Order: sequence, then C-alpha cells, then structure tokens
Amino acid sequence: MNKELKIIQKEPIAAIATPVGEGGIAVIRVSGNEAIAKVNRAFDGKDLRDQKSHTVHFGNIIDQSGKVIDEVLVTLFHSPRSYTGEETVEISCHGGVLVTQQVLETILELNIRSAEPGEFTQRAFLNGKMELSQAEAVADLIHAKSKKALDAAHQQLEGRLGEHIKTFRQQIIDATAMVELELDFIEEDVEFANKEELEELLMDLDKEIDNLLSTYEAGRLVKHGVKTVFIGLPNAGKSTLLNTLVGKDRAIVTEIAGTTRDTIDVDWSYDGLLFKLIDTAGLRETEDVIEAEGVRRSQKAFEEADLAVYLKDLSKPFAPEEREDLGGFQKKAGDTPFVLVGTKKDIELEKEEERLDYDLKISALEGEKIEELKKLMKQRALENKHYDASSLLVTSSRHRDALLKAQEHVRSALQALDRGMTGDFLSIDLRAALNELGTITGEITNEDVLDSIFSRFCIGK
Amino acid sequence: MNKELKIIQKEPIAAIATPVGEGGIAVIRVSGNEAIAKVNRAFDGKDLRDQKSHTVHFGNIIDQSGKVIDEVLVTLFHSPRSYTGEETVEISCHGGVLVTQQVLETILELNIRSAEPGEFTQRAFLNGKMELSQAEAVADLIHAKSKKALDAAHQQLEGRLGEHIKTFRQQIIDATAMVELELDFIEEDVEFANKEELEELLMDLDKEIDNLLSTYEAGRLVKHGVKTVFIGLPNAGKSTLLNTLVGKDRAIVTEIAGTTRDTIDVDWSYDGLLFKLIDTAGLRETEDVIEAEGVRRSQKAFEEADLAVYLKDLSKPFAPEEREDLGGFQKKAGDTPFVLVGTKKDIELEKEEERLDYDLKISALEGEKIEELKKLMKQRALENKHYDASSLLVTSSRHRDALLKAQEHVRSALQALDRGMTGDFLSIDLRAALNELGTITGEITNEDVLDSIFSRFCIGK
Repeated sequence: MNKELKIIQKEPIAAIATPVGEGGIAVIRVSGNEAIAKVNRAFDGKDLRDQKSHTVHFGNIIDQSGKVIDEVLVTLFHSPRSYTGEETVEISCHGGVLVTQQVLETILELNIRSAEPGEFTQRAFLNGKMELSQAEAVADLIHAKSKKALDAAHQQLEGRLGEHIKTFRQQIIDATAMVELELDFIEEDVEFANKEELEELLMDLDKEIDNLLSTYEAGRLVKHGVKTVFIGLPNAGKSTLLNTLVGKDRAIVTEIAGTTRDTIDVDWSYDGLLFKLIDTAGLRETEDVIEAEGVRRSQKAFEEADLAVYLKDLSKPFAPEEREDLGGFQKKAGDTPFVLVGTKKDIELEKEEERLDYDLKISALEGEKIEELKKLMKQRALENKHYDASSLLVTSSRHRDALLKAQEHVRSALQALDRGMTGDFLSIDLRAALNELGTITGEITNEDVLDSIFSRFCIGK
Repeated sequence: MNKELKIIQKEPIAAIATPVGEGGIAVIRVSGNEAIAKVNRAFDGKDLRDQKSHTVHFGNIIDQSGKVIDEVLVTLFHSPRSYTGEETVEISCHGGVLVTQQVLETILELNIRSAEPGEFTQRAFLNGKMELSQAEAVADLIHAKSKKALDAAHQQLEGRLGEHIKTFRQQIIDATAMVELELDFIEEDVEFANKEELEELLMDLDKEIDNLLSTYEAGRLVKHGVKTVFIGLPNAGKSTLLNTLVGKDRAIVTEIAGTTRDTIDVDWSYDGLLFKLIDTAGLRETEDVIEAEGVRRSQKAFEEADLAVYLKDLSKPFAPEEREDLGGFQKKAGDTPFVLVGTKKDIELEKEEERLDYDLKISALEGEKIEELKKLMKQRALENKHYDASSLLVTSSRHRDALLKAQEHVRSALQALDRGMTGDFLSIDLRAALNELGTITGEITNEDVLDSIFSRFCIGK
C-alpha cells in the first residue's frame, strides 16, 4: 500500500456492496465526509461519533419518523484506515432484496448520494490507497472465473505489476538525468560522455519491457478464458465430447443458449484455466437461410477462436468433402492452435484407408484418452505464449498498449542516440515513455481513462 | 431478547452469508466452538485470539501452503454477544463468485463444516437469543416483497407475537392454578369456589385468541401477496391493463413466463401490498389440446385466486356467450372478492343496451380511473379481513394452526366446566392449550418442526 496518503474527504456516497439477491446478510457501504455523524442520525443505539475505528455496534436503522427499518450491525472505519481512505461506515442488515433497498433508501435520505459504479475504489485510488493497476485488479478478482485468473488478479492486486513499472520508470528517470545533465553543460555537443552507458540502459529497458509484453498472450487467455471451437461433421461426437469434458464439473458450468440453435457456449475449467467451449454448426456453404446464419456464426467463432478442435468420426470412412473441409479449416486456422481428434475409437473402422495424423484418438463413451485430450488442449492453448505459472502476467489490453507505446518511445530514443541527435530529442522520447508507463499505475491519468476503468466496476465496489 | 441465555457452543460451521453473485464484497460467517482460534490459523495478520469482541481486523486469508487466497476484513464476536450466541467470526472478502468460494473452501479445510440452511438462526434459537416465532420472522423479513410484508415481519421479529402468546400462556397458567388448587383440597367435589372467575378468564382468552386469529386472512395476503386473476374475452384489454398497472414500477416487476403461453404472472406492489397479477386465457371449453391446457390452468388460477377482476370491452356489444361466461365466473367466484371493470371507456359504444353493474369504467389508454381501480383492488382484497395497518398480523399457517388448536382446547375446557366435569379433565385441556401456544414461541418443540422451519431458510442465515 502506498504510504504517501493525502486524503481528501469527498461528499458521502452509499451503495449496497454485496451482490443483489436473497441471503443471510447484506452490507451497505457509506464513505465520505462526516459519514459516521450522518449515519448516526438514522442509528438507534450507541452514539457512533464516540466510538473507535474498527469497532462494530448493534442497533436499529430508523427512518425520520423513528420507525425501525432493520436491525443492523454497524462497523466504523476512521480516515485514513478504510478502503477508500475516507471516513467509512458499513451497515450489515438482513439480506433480503426489499429490506436492503429500504435501508439504503433511509441512508440516502441523510443527504448522502448513491455511489456510481467503482466510485469507492476510484476514491481509494485518488487517495493513494492503491495504484491504478491495483484498482483494476480488484475488478479482475471479482470477475475471475478460474483459479489462474484469480492468481493473476492477486499478483496485480499485490502490486507486482506496479513494482515492475516503478523499476522501468526509475531506469528512464536515470537515463533522462544523464541526457539532461549533458544538456546543461554542453549545449551544442551531441556526444555524450556516457553514450554507451545510456545505450546499454535503454537496450536493457527495451528487453525488459519485451519480456513483460510477451506474457500478454497467456495473460489474456488466463483472464478471459480460451475460446475453443469444436468442429466436425454432424454426429462426429462434438456434443458427447463437450458433455464428457464438463460433466464432472457441472457445478461450475454455465450454459448460455446461443441466439441461434446452432451454437452453445459452455464455461469449463481445467487445471485452473478457463475454456469457453463453443459447439459449432458446420462451416459448409448452404442454401438454407437458418442454417446459413448458423454457419456464419460458426465462421465468426472460428475466426475469434484461441483453440480449434476438429473431430473426425473414426467409425465412418473419410468422405471426400470432409477432406476438403479439414484442409480448409487447417488453412483458415493459420496460427490458431489446432487439435485433430479421432472420435468413437471404440468402434473404429478396421480399414481406415485415409489415415490422418491424429493428435489423439479418443472414445468419449469409454472415457478413453479424455484426460490426455484435456492436457493437450491446455498445452496447445498456451504453447509459445511464454506462460509461467509463477511469473507475473500482463492481462489487460490497456497495460499492453501502454507498454507497447513506452517501448516505441524507448526504441525511438535509441535510434536518436544512434543517429547522434541532440539531447532534446532523446529527452522528449524518454519523457513520453515515462508518461506511458505512468498511465499504468495512474501517476499519469485523465478523467476519461478513469471513467472508462471504473465504469466497468459493479456498484458498491 | 431473551435474557436467560444458556449458551452451548457446538462444532464450528461456516457458510457464505451474503447473496450469491458478483458484488463489491461477500461475507463468510463462521460460528461455533473455538471459531476464532480456528480461523486464526488461516489468517495472516494480528493474532485474532488476543483481540476484543466487536473489533475488525485487516489481513489475508492464506491456505495451508501460505498462499494468499484473498485480502479480507475479519470481525470478531465473542460468546454470547453474537447472532448465534456462539463465538463467531465474519470474514469480509472480495465479492466475486470464485474468490468467495475459495475463501470458504480454505475455511472448511480448518476442520469446520458447511452450515445447513438456517443453521445459524437455529443455533440462535437454541441458545435463547430469539424465540421460534422471531426466528421465523428472520426468514419472512428476507423474503419480504412488499412494505407491508416487511412491516409484519418486523413486528414479529421484535417479539410482538411472542408477547401475545406469553400473555395467553400466563392466563392459562393462572386458570390451571385455580383448577389444581381445587383438586388438591376437595378431591370429590366438582363445584369450584371460583367457577365463575375461571369461566370468565377462559372466555376472555377464547375471545383474544379469536381476535388474533381473525388477522390471519389479511396476514396471509400481506405475506404472500394477493393472487389476482384477470379474466375476460381476448382483446378485452387484459394485457394493456396489466402493463398500465405495473408500468411505473417496472423496476420491481419480475415477469415469469408461464409453462404455457397462456398465463403470465407479474409481481406488482401497490401502497405497500404485493399483488401477484395473473393474466389468464379464457375459461371456456375448447377442443384444441393446447388451448384446453391453458383453460385448465386458468381455471386453477381462478380457484386459487384471492381477487378476480373481470374485464368487459365497452367498445363492443355484449355477446350472449359473454353474459354466460360472466354469470359463471360470478358463481364460481363465490366468496372470492370480485371486481367488474368496463375497459376502453374512451371508445365506449353509445348504445350499450345490456348495462352491467360495473364497479368502474376505465380507459387504460387515457389513464382514466386507473388510480381508482388500484384503490378498489386493494380495498376489495382486504375487505372483511380485519386488516389494521398498525396491529399485529398472524402471517404463518403454522401459528394459525397452533392458535386454532389451543382455542379448541380452551373451548373444550369451557364445555367441561359447564358440564361440571372434574378438575382433572379441565387440567388436561388447559395443559394441551398451553403446549399448543408453546409451539409458536418454541418453548415446546421437536426436531421435525425445527427441521421443517429452518430448512426453508437460505444457507448462511
């Protein structure tokens, strides 16, 4: 946590901080100037203004007429020892939809306004309680759907990305100091006494940024899941395989009926990694309007896929049009990892003349090679993606873009140095790189960026 | 709250206490013997065993390998100053589905088991923190869908029903004392010195139970909502009226598509009272199989209705079969409150020969008489139901049944007294009445009753 806090207590805001629905309890968070004194006016119990930070008090929330709205526990956080850094009250009430709403409404009547999505976290950021990349990690943590996504969010929340960025920025500040020192003394001379040292420093930086950037492909998959399309002729065993894969983990499967009857998406986790399994219609051209729409969607899913699995029914001879299909898929797949699976191995034709270079031959019915397939799917998905379970991953496209731009400026500075440009030019590039890196942790930011980041939060966070 | 606490600390249990879903925070509740010491083993922060009750502590939940699962705030409640009366820890973590699940799993690894639905509240009851009727009110409060339902639950949670029952029981204890005093002294004599006094006491009691019982019809409607069926020929304006009624309150409307296309239920609140609006198909006999199923369901909805609204299109002449229908409905309605509404008043036929005794003529299109209709619906629904906004309502069929049985025994005692039966007989009846009343507050109970009550709770309460 950042130690240099400069807390500004803004107008108090309130929101339900727990998920919406029926539960044992719900929590309403109130944060801002005089939050405790304000909530105290609707609290029938001890005088909250006399109580210590981090203490809990039993009482009733009452409306202006004195009517009891709910029995509650109230927790007090004095500034700066709260999530936002501001004075904060958390009201734990009964967890019904209506009763929670009524408690919130009673609080809003105290001249406290409804919080915007992410506004508590935004205040935490503005008060220096966390860096911007940490604030973003809070949202990632909440939305995480796999263990690896959780781990990545935790690393970012702990500030590990921030530490890298801090080191990079320090390197640039050192470089800038070298350049500007020269500028001060030898205004006309472009020959730096320490040109080599500077060059080395910038080349190191370039390489380190590269290393971090190289984790993005894996980071993206870890955060959003591996879009996996299953392709094959009808009755190739796609649905059976999908059911076999997700069957044991039914509890964490969410099934979303596609807008056409022809695509079904299922979330499935394997070994901590989320796969978004997409069952597609064929990709063949057709005259049937509805089928054509299905094919169009399949085509789109295939183009956006992170992994493609082609299923060939081993119990049937290899039809000429299937060969054509498969060739087309492999061509279209391009760089997309591809797995070629023979299905129904239990009833495989003995004379399978047209042998293919199968990655695996499975039998979903007999559970044969299913574990191997799962492992292979994970391996192919992360292959050549610089994935290392213990290392920090860049998971956000915003961070990747900023790193790319910073790297560009560093490279431009290197070129300038190489061409013997004046220190002014180098200085401009270095400052631009510094700024780009600053946008990741939030040293440099603007309202639009903040709005776009925090609007993706849920209300109450 | 009951002051005579005899706390038994059972094995520790844990559950997610907040609704399931994504939110800013989630709370995991742990209660039972050594809950604090156990949670402390997974807590990276201060030693929780040294901290005071009602204090909050920041730290990390870590698994057995020391890996951070989440940043949390932990609140401690020492026995008996907790919801359950037991030692309790509430862990406030980030409100994502997976992260919350992981924190819970980490806690369950500490030799703490998953709580059953309602188990925390059941322990609170068993430890004398609340009466049984109060425990039931907790569930009512959480599930309340209208302000009046909330109010009724609050009254019960505050112990107002319990107070009534306590008074009744004291009256029976007094009566029993009179009877048994006589028994001790004049074994053979059935003439009580204070027979009149006893009779008066029991008649008073009978009447007071009657008064309380009379609130049940309104209590049931307040708690569960007024099932309101809309009937009329197709195009009589049912859907339009439904939309007009719920339109302004869209936010609190939940639409449940019926299992046939022919019924739609919508929750709608008016003036604090919940109405469950049911749009029905006609009730006419038909040969069409699907339509017949719709009619069967409409018929059932009509039979279970608390209020029926018949819509007649004023812009059309009154068809003979409609007259037949309406007559049938009114007959079938029997005691069910009935409202006869003329619709499309804005385009009413000038020569409407067959005048009906309309309660109201409305125009949903022009908003004419809509407020009047809402008022009338509420008035008719609660008519003759002894509804008084400020008085206590019996809302539970379990309580009603116990009151009815207690009343039966009181009446039976009165008859025995009248017939000059021996004190033994009276004594048996009075004790039976006492027991019945005791089941309401839980002085008398058994495991089956408790199981059936608490299994209706959500997990985490």
